[in-house]
Amino acid sequence: MKKHNFSAGPSILSEYTIKNSAAAVTDFEGTGLSILEVSHRGKEFVAVCEEARARVKELLDVPAGYDVVFLGGGASLQFCMAPFNLLNNKASYLDTGTWASNAIKEAKLFGEVDVVASSKDANYTFIPKDYKVGKDSDYFHFTSNNTIFGTEMRYDPDCDVRLVCDMSSDIFSRPVDISKYDLIYAGAQKNLAPAGVTLAIVREGALGHVERAIPTMLDYRTHIKKESMFNTPPVFPIYAALQTLKWYKDLGGLTVIEKINLEKAAILYDEIDRNKLFRGTVATEDRSIMNVCFVMNDEYKELESGFGAFASAAGMVGIKGHRSVGGFRASLYNAMPKSSVEALIAIMQEFEKQN
Amino acid sequence: MKKHNFSAGPSILSEYTIKNSAAAVTDFEGTGLSILEVSHRGKEFVAVCEEARARVKELLDVPAGYDVVFLGGGASLQFCMAPFNLLNNKASYLDTGTWASNAIKEAKLFGEVDVVASSKDANYTFIPKDYKVGKDSDYFHFTSNNTIFGTEMRYDPDCDVRLVCDMSSDIFSRPVDISKYDLIYAGAQKNLAPAGVTLAIVREGALGHVERAIPTMLDYRTHIKKESMFNTPPVFPIYAALQTLKWYKDLGGLTVIEKINLEKAAILYDEIDRNKLFRGTVATEDRSIMNVCFVMNDEYKELESGFGAFASAAGMVGIKGHRSVGGFRASLYNAMPKSSVEALIAIMQEFEKQN
Repeated sequence: MKKHNFSAGPSILSEYTIKNSAAAVTDFEGTGLSILEVSHRGKEFVAVCEEARARVKELLDVPAGYDVVFLGGGASLQFCMAPFNLLNNKASYLDTGTWASNAIKEAKLFGEVDVVASSKDANYTFIPKDYKVGKDSDYFHFTSNNTIFGTEMRYDPDCDVRLVCDMSSDIFSRPVDISKYDLIYAGAQKNLAPAGVTLAIVREGALGHVERAIPTMLDYRTHIKKESMFNTPPVFPIYAALQTLKWYKDLGGLTVIEKINLEKAAILYDEIDRNKLFRGTVATEDRSIMNVCFVMNDEYKELESGFGAFASAAGMVGIKGHRSVGGFRASLYNAMPKSSVEALIAIMQEFEKQN
Repeated sequence: MKKHNFSAGPSILSEYTIKNSAAAVTDFEGTGLSILEVSHRGKEFVAVCEEARARVKELLDVPAGYDVVFLGGGASLQFCMAPFNLLNNKASYLDTGTWASNAIKEAKLFGEVDVVASSKDANYTFIPKDYKVGKDSDYFHFTSNNTIFGTEMRYDPDCDVRLVCDMSSDIFSRPVDISKYDLIYAGAQKNLAPAGVTLAIVREGALGHVERAIPTMLDYRTHIKKESMFNTPPVFPIYAALQTLKWYKDLGGLTVIEKINLEKAAILYDEIDRNKLFRGTVATEDRSIMNVCFVMNDEYKELESGFGAFASAAGMVGIKGHRSVGGFRASLYNAMPKSSVEALIAIMQEFEKQN
């Protein structure tokens, strides 16, 4: 049976990425060796890493003065790396969910943190809009997409201070005005690669302004200077990332990809709004096009586990909602085909008919 | 042509590891999904991670009171994590090479560092033996195998203070008396898995004694408490690690593996000592059984590039020595078959005959 992978992350990757990655595990570009056992300093992999960085720059139209690096450790490590490198006295954070809140916790180890707004009291069902970032902040940090709660800031905010963004779950889902940002980081395991690598895009001028000593591995300058080769990088995830980046180019780039993403999300939200059994969980204007969260309407609550089993039997994988929200979550990352979204909608309609 | 992979790391993995890893990229244990796109919280991968941790404990005979965790970020990140978690006032370090020296540099950010001995002036060609670790040190750190220079401490030293070891390039090459250690860490890309995951074995009682605030991701307790699932772990490298651990068990465990490793190293060192063209670079008693470093004898120096090309043409991969040593380095990790070592020896003998 065909599986439709709606997992929130690690999540669906393109067939192109998976096919080429599997081939490289058996034979890496004619070397006679597996990608799993080649030196990261061999010319074949150095070329892979360079091309992957160049393609990130091309796809996101990264201006001059920015560096792109691949790091180990996951986006959670960035929660401390960002303040390690950028926080002198005070930073401003927008609290829009679990990950934003985790980032705030780490920043507090490094200086004063001004939480400019939070939707925590409403279980993060909306993105606060009425907030002000103090000009005395070293930077303003936000999370563009809240994987757990299904809200998204699908725009690049104007800001008087340095702008830092955790784009883990919606990077490459739309064109971004990189010039507004000083630091963007993203765990790869949604729209890029298997788990194990984190992408960072750093404005060179943003670094070197803090007085503290920074451990070598936590200093962005270390990795920029050595072009992601200071220590052994996560070779295989970077190889897989390159495949995804090639596929994105072939699709037509981020403008095309955003259009497809908007269509996929629209048909699913339309069904949630139409179907008597379900309702969305977040403010309509803040709905994420990556993670679609929905629950049973109150009068059908007892059908929740029934729908879960029904969907699962039809090949839907990973649609159980996070325990913080309950209900269901369908993650529609770039690699998710529209046909899978249509298959989910058909299941929702069928379940409605039966009940 | 059959390739013989003598790379220093990332390095040769067993055919068993590569074959099973490739299969999982196509279909992960019958889920109909790739290992690259499954949730780390799905029951299938949770079982993989648990089994991998259990097998590390079994293979190394880890006593009660120790935890085994898989971390991202590489062993270089451990250079700061160790002092973050363990250094209150002073730590002692043995300087036996580039990586030991890098670890020392990081520790200095956290407190006083006593370098008890160093062989730097002799280009790290031996392991210093005449040193004393002060009882006022929070811990003593050493590097069991020096990948670049080809020296190894193939024993577990007695020590009056906590013992910390970077075993990146010889873990699983022999049985280890874990009970002597408080922290062992090892980048996986030599004897365990592809690059992207680091193994740590931590004595529970060693943690919680420093006063500084530790960033969440750099606190071993975070990962111990969540059984390596605090954040998304490097899923695929952990899967590959499990395959290697199964293969080690099938081989008969670490006593058998050490015997094979000693044999492989002995025949190559014997050839280096016998062959008029070559000589080893380090003190005989400190020779590593993992990384065999050798150079041309002075009177044959001009043959160096010729031998490199000759070996390469015969399928030998990765035997160029590190620039700090020059000459050649044949890494004989666990997955290296004796037949490949014999093939290299045959090439050395053939080249001797021709010259």
